[in-house]
Amino acid sequence: MTRRRAALIGAGHTKFGVLPDGPRALLRQAVDGAVASVDRGVERSAIGEAFLGTLGFAGWQLGNASAVLAEEARLPGVPVTRVENACASAGFALRSGVQAIESGARDVVLVVGLEKMNDAPSTRRRYWLGVSGDTEWERMAGLTFAGVYGLMASAYLTEHHADPDALAEVAVKNHENALANPNAHLRKRITREEAKASPLVADPLRLFDCCPVSDGAAALLLAGEEVAKRFTDTPVLIEGTGAGSDALALQDRASLTKLAATRRAADEAFRRSGTERRSVDLLEVHDCFTIAELLALEDLGFAPAGEAAALELSGATRIGGALPVNPDGGLKAKGHPIGATGASQAYEAFRQLRGEAGSRQVKGARRALTHNVGGSGASATVTLFAAV
Amino acid sequence: MTRRRAALIGAGHTKFGVLPDGPRALLRQAVDGAVASVDRGVERSAIGEAFLGTLGFAGWQLGNASAVLAEEARLPGVPVTRVENACASAGFALRSGVQAIESGARDVVLVVGLEKMNDAPSTRRRYWLGVSGDTEWERMAGLTFAGVYGLMASAYLTEHHADPDALAEVAVKNHENALANPNAHLRKRITREEAKASPLVADPLRLFDCCPVSDGAAALLLAGEEVAKRFTDTPVLIEGTGAGSDALALQDRASLTKLAATRRAADEAFRRSGTERRSVDLLEVHDCFTIAELLALEDLGFAPAGEAAALELSGATRIGGALPVNPDGGLKAKGHPIGATGASQAYEAFRQLRGEAGSRQVKGARRALTHNVGGSGASATVTLFAAV
Repeated sequence: MTRRRAALIGAGHTKFGVLPDGPRALLRQAVDGAVASVDRGVERSAIGEAFLGTLGFAGWQLGNASAVLAEEARLPGVPVTRVENACASAGFALRSGVQAIESGARDVVLVVGLEKMNDAPSTRRRYWLGVSGDTEWERMAGLTFAGVYGLMASAYLTEHHADPDALAEVAVKNHENALANPNAHLRKRITREEAKASPLVADPLRLFDCCPVSDGAAALLLAGEEVAKRFTDTPVLIEGTGAGSDALALQDRASLTKLAATRRAADEAFRRSGTERRSVDLLEVHDCFTIAELLALEDLGFAPAGEAAALELSGATRIGGALPVNPDGGLKAKGHPIGATGASQAYEAFRQLRGEAGSRQVKGARRALTHNVGGSGASATVTLFAAV
Repeated sequence: MTRRRAALIGAGHTKFGVLPDGPRALLRQAVDGAVASVDRGVERSAIGEAFLGTLGFAGWQLGNASAVLAEEARLPGVPVTRVENACASAGFALRSGVQAIESGARDVVLVVGLEKMNDAPSTRRRYWLGVSGDTEWERMAGLTFAGVYGLMASAYLTEHHADPDALAEVAVKNHENALANPNAHLRKRITREEAKASPLVADPLRLFDCCPVSDGAAALLLAGEEVAKRFTDTPVLIEGTGAGSDALALQDRASLTKLAATRRAADEAFRRSGTERRSVDLLEVHDCFTIAELLALEDLGFAPAGEAAALELSGATRIGGALPVNPDGGLKAKGHPIGATGASQAYEAFRQLRGEAGSRQVKGARRALTHNVGGSGASATVTLFAAV
C-alpha cells in the first residue's frame, strides 16, 4: 500500500513566557498565526479535524478542553481530540494529526499545543505537575522532576566520566540561540561561569540547568501531500513519525542514562521515512534539563554512549556547527509550556526548512528532526521533516 | 484511494460498579480479557500501538497515564497515547485506534477505556468532574451535570409536550436489560412507579434518571481488515466513524434539545460507511441521564424531533423490539465509568454481532451503532460495526 503522506502548510506561535494572556487568548493567537501563515490562504471551513495537546491549563480546564479549542479556533462542529502524554502531549497530538491525514480521513488538520502555567498558585502547580510523574513511589518519596533528572545526570557523569562543563555548555548555547528567537522566554546571554555558579536545585543540576515555567501555545496546519501544493509552493513534508514508551518510574527502567522510549521512537521514524541520520541538518530535542539534551543526542543515534558531552563542548551543536541542536533556544531558554512544546518544535522545523528563521537560520537546512518526551521518559515521539 | 478498514478481533470487560480493585488491576483485567477472547490467540508482541481513554483515575494519575497502560498491558516500549474528551474519551480513543489502522501505520492496535471513580472522596470527585464541564460559567454558577441535563429535559418536555413517563420508561428498560448483563453495576428490576417516586435530583430528573458512579474498564483489539482473519473467523468490521463538537457551555448552543455534535458525528459515520440507518439492528447510545437517550434517538436520525418519547413508550427499543437500544443496560444501569464507556459500548457491539450476548442477545443482529458523548454534548463520536 502506498502511504499518503502529510505536509505542514502553516504554523503559528505565541510568545513564550510569563504572559498576561489567558489560555483562550493563547489558543486564538496561535491558530490565527497558523492560518495567516499559509501562503495562498486557507478557509477555516477546509479544516476537517483538530487535535489539542495540553496538560489542562494549570488545572483550569482539566477535562474537555477540546471544546475550548473548537470555540477559539472558530471551527464550530469540527471534531477535536485532546491528547495528553504529559510534556509530549503536542508531539503525540501531531502524530494523531498525521495519522488522520495518512488514513485518508481528512485533507486538512489543525494541531495545537497549549499550556498556561503561571496562573496557578505554586502549590496547585506542584500537585498538577506531580500527577504527571509516577504518583505511587516517586512523588510519595518527594522526588520532583528536577530530582529525577538530577539522578540521571549524576549517573551519566559517573558512568561516562563525562566533563560536567557540558551541562553548562548546553545552557550557554541554548541561551545564545534564544537571543535570536523573538518568541523565547529567556533572552539573556549567560556564561559558563554564571551557569556553574547558579543555585543548586538537584545535584548536579543548578538553576541554569532547568527550563523555566512558561505560558504559550503553538499551532500547525497539516495537509495531505497531494493537496498541500494548493496552499503553498513550499510545504514541509512529514517524512515519518515514531513513538515509544517506558516504565513511568525511573526505578523500573533498565537504565538511568538511556531513554528506551526515545530510542524506539527514533528507530521507527527513520525506518518509516527511509531517511539516514547523516542527512539530518538540525535537531530540536527535548531539553527540559540540560542533561536531557545530552541523553537525547545519544538516544537519537547522533553520538555514541557517553560522547554527547564532548560533542557539545566541541561547538558542533551550535548554529554554525556541523549538527545544530535547538536553534530556537530549546525548552531550556525558549521556554517549556508543557503541552505546547511538541508543536513549538515542529513550528521551528517549518520555519527552518523554509529558510524563514532569521538570524537563527541554519544555512541550507533541508531536513529536521523533532524529539518530544513525556515525563522523565515514559513516552517519546520523534518526527522527521523535509523541505520539498 | 481505497481505504483500509479496521476490524475488532477481541474485546474484554471488567465488572462495572463500586469495586475494590485499583486502576492498575482494572486495566490488567480488561486487557487480559481482550487478549484471551481472540479466537486463535494473539501474541502481545503483535500489538503495535495502544490508546487509552480516561479522565485520570479520579485524580490519581491525572497526567501521563499512558505509561501505566503500557506496564499493565505488558507491552514494554509500545507507544501509548492518552485521549481525553471527558465522557467520550474512549470513543475518541477508538477513533484514533481506527485511524492508526486505516493509515497503514499498524496492523494490530489496543484501545482501552478506564475509570476508577469511587476511590476519590466526594469533594475531590466533584472538583474533578466539574473541570470536565464549562468551568467559566456553568460550574461557577453551581450547575452540575445533572443540572445541565435537567435543563435539557425541561426544555424537551415543554417544547414537544412529551409524556414525562418516557424518562422513567428508559430507566425501567435499561434496568431490565442490565439484569442479563453480568458486568452491569445496577442489576435490579425497577417499575415505572418506583422511578417516578425516586428523589428529585434536578427537576424533572430524579435519582432513577441518573447513571451511577462506577469503576470499570473495557479493552478492544483492532486489526487491519486483511489481517483480522488470521486471528478469528468472525471479526467485527468497523465500517466507519464520525465525530463532531459543539460549544462547551449549554448557554452557547443553538438548541437545548438537539446535540449538534451527535448529528454531525452520525451523518459522517453513515456517509463514510455507506450504510443506511434502516440496516442498523441495535444502538448503544450515551444515556448518562434518561433524557440523553431520547435526544440521542432523534439526533442519530432514528426518530423525528419530539417523537423519541413515544418510541420508547411503544416498547420498540426493548431487546425484542424493532430497534433495541442499550441492550447491555446502558450507562444508566450498566454503569458509567467515565473514560471506560466508549470502549464498553464497542465491547457490546462485538459480543452482539458475534451472537455471544447470552440472554440479552438481539436476534440476528448484523449491524450495530455506538454513540459516545463528551460532557453535555461538547463532543460526540459515532461508530458503525458490521458482522462479516
